[in-house]
Amino acid sequence: MDPVRINADRLQSRITDLARFGRTPEGGVTRLSYQPEHADAVRLAARWMREAGAETGLDAWGNLFGVVPGTLSSLPPVAAGSHLDTVPNGGIFDGPLGVVAAVEVAAALRDARVTLRHPLLLLAFAEEEGTSFGVGCLGSLGLVGRAPAPETLRDQAGVPLVDLLRAFDPGVPRRAAPSPMVAYLELHIEQGPTLSAQGTPLAAVEAIVGISRAACIFTGEANHAGTTPMDVRRDALWGAADLIGEVRTIARDTGGRAVATVGRCLVSPGATNVIPGRAEVMVELRSADARLLETLRDQVEAAGRACAGRHGLGLEIRAWRTEPPVPLNRAVRDEVVAAARDLGYAVTTMPSWAGHDAKILAAVAAAGMIFVPSVGGISHSPREQTSWEDVARGAQVLCHTIERLDASSGV
Amino acid sequence: MDPVRINADRLQSRITDLARFGRTPEGGVTRLSYQPEHADAVRLAARWMREAGAETGLDAWGNLFGVVPGTLSSLPPVAAGSHLDTVPNGGIFDGPLGVVAAVEVAAALRDARVTLRHPLLLLAFAEEEGTSFGVGCLGSLGLVGRAPAPETLRDQAGVPLVDLLRAFDPGVPRRAAPSPMVAYLELHIEQGPTLSAQGTPLAAVEAIVGISRAACIFTGEANHAGTTPMDVRRDALWGAADLIGEVRTIARDTGGRAVATVGRCLVSPGATNVIPGRAEVMVELRSADARLLETLRDQVEAAGRACAGRHGLGLEIRAWRTEPPVPLNRAVRDEVVAAARDLGYAVTTMPSWAGHDAKILAAVAAAGMIFVPSVGGISHSPREQTSWEDVARGAQVLCHTIERLDASSGV
Repeated sequence: MDPVRINADRLQSRITDLARFGRTPEGGVTRLSYQPEHADAVRLAARWMREAGAETGLDAWGNLFGVVPGTLSSLPPVAAGSHLDTVPNGGIFDGPLGVVAAVEVAAALRDARVTLRHPLLLLAFAEEEGTSFGVGCLGSLGLVGRAPAPETLRDQAGVPLVDLLRAFDPGVPRRAAPSPMVAYLELHIEQGPTLSAQGTPLAAVEAIVGISRAACIFTGEANHAGTTPMDVRRDALWGAADLIGEVRTIARDTGGRAVATVGRCLVSPGATNVIPGRAEVMVELRSADARLLETLRDQVEAAGRACAGRHGLGLEIRAWRTEPPVPLNRAVRDEVVAAARDLGYAVTTMPSWAGHDAKILAAVAAAGMIFVPSVGGISHSPREQTSWEDVARGAQVLCHTIERLDASSGV
Repeated sequence: MDPVRINADRLQSRITDLARFGRTPEGGVTRLSYQPEHADAVRLAARWMREAGAETGLDAWGNLFGVVPGTLSSLPPVAAGSHLDTVPNGGIFDGPLGVVAAVEVAAALRDARVTLRHPLLLLAFAEEEGTSFGVGCLGSLGLVGRAPAPETLRDQAGVPLVDLLRAFDPGVPRRAAPSPMVAYLELHIEQGPTLSAQGTPLAAVEAIVGISRAACIFTGEANHAGTTPMDVRRDALWGAADLIGEVRTIARDTGGRAVATVGRCLVSPGATNVIPGRAEVMVELRSADARLLETLRDQVEAAGRACAGRHGLGLEIRAWRTEPPVPLNRAVRDEVVAAARDLGYAVTTMPSWAGHDAKILAAVAAAGMIFVPSVGGISHSPREQTSWEDVARGAQVLCHTIERLDASSGV
């Protein structure tokens, strides 16, 4: 099978075209879900889908989809896509890359006059970033029927989601996306520095890491910062500061199998001349290994108790909120690796340390992801960057993987 | 000289009377300067002053004073007092003790038909706590002519100080307090646990500690809490947390000659899933030894640089704001010790780790302070407590010290 070739110039110009909608002075993109910029992006992507032979629709959550018929209309579709919303002042690749590349697969197949056996479902999700409603992957959760009730959601300005959805009109007919689907593939930038540092242009993603978060609250005694001798102080911030160091050590000791972050530290009463009586740190752990995540939670709890005990403090660890790791489909991953090798590209495998729509789709389809390098690991920033060569390689592997999946009997 | 005896019952009942003005549900006192509760307290204290033979006045800063004539009207007065304002929900002794005790000295002298050679100046300062205008000892600074321009000050509700002063009417004639004064004595609760823990009922204060404060700002790189491996992170909070521990060690290593506190820690962007790009901690150092304070500043700066270097962070230490230590008058301190011994009370000497009006008065008078124990070292709280025996001993020593100062030729 000679791989169908994608059109790298068309791919590049379309990514650039989409970046116009919500452009910021810093060269980034602010395209929040259901806002006019998002409607503009959906309208343009829908036009491209139709030009590639797809019939388009907009589902109840504002997700755009397009269906290119296959030769065997009874088969469920193979799907590919990503999201069109961005974080505030984000980059131009995070999301749109996977959408434009999926459309490019359809366009390249059409240019090559190749029709797949399966229908090809192109997906452009809304509200993956969770910026407006505080729920990550809201669009894909909606698609698979697992979103919160829309009536319960309001954006940061207090506008009800249902009002935004009603007013959202990119000129695409409203209807439900086809269900079920046989597989879902998502091309995305890595957002981390691993591929860029290794010099490897591609990765097949093994799993989406699980996340555990808990607030650890140290309580001591707020007291006068002058009159209280050092040896009788019960300074809550001492416990919190020690724990921040311990959390770093715990994560480092996994040798790269987990990361841990304290992103918030709240001190009370927070006055220059008062010993902190309360200090709250939010610990976040991530790993692709559910067992390891559990072990790390135990280690953080033990470290917290030791830090509290050392300084005569109380410690409350609020219940851990855990999103378990989601393994991606092994067969799909193998097809991604095989496709890259067919094309003569170096490829590795790795977990995804960030959440993606593929994590949600994994519940209803054989899901896989392809990563391309992020220069310096920067994302959610106007400085987010991926070389056009890497972009083209990613889309080419996406295309060939879909060809392979379509042909294989295993999926 | 047989010491004049103060009336412990009158002292206790008057402290209890004053505590009614601004009483909180928790049993504390909220008496902010120039508010109606403060006017009530000044009105009652002025009545007691007049009953003790003093002529009262209210100066331009709302400080109440009373002058009891001496036998030698040409001599400058010996002064005693403290403040009538409190922190929000503070205790009943912090401030009022020194005012009521000074009035008690005048009343006891009158009861004993003893007239001093010097006039006796009774002082009840406003706004020592700095609660309303952010300037500690504002009233005493005003008395000695070192306060900021009143037109520049507004309280936390935005009300101009000049409006509050205009409306402040405790029924005492407005006039300037006499100047100069020969000595100033202030009885105060220790606010720390030292005397209470030692079981010593009294201390003559050696000095008011100096304070140095600086914001230490670590800068790293805000980045994705998932995709950024541990070994390439530049987490600003790591530097801040390490410094918090170092500051504790630096202060402990002085063996009680200094204290250090980090009371504020601000993390930016402050999101659970973003590595902190900026962390700011406010370091406060206190010592009675100006040289040591300088050494500690250097140690904190060196430790900060080491913490920043260890984690690849930038560090900015904002200019230190230093209030130098203020030694109190040696002769006055010796008189306090001698007075306590005359009375058969155990007495020690110690620095004051908190600021007081005596620190300001030291610029214009031979200033001294007497400390009595705070149970458990608690202050600025409804749980602030001093036994009535200790209160009476403190007032008795104040009275006898004033007798000794009045008689001595040295002052």
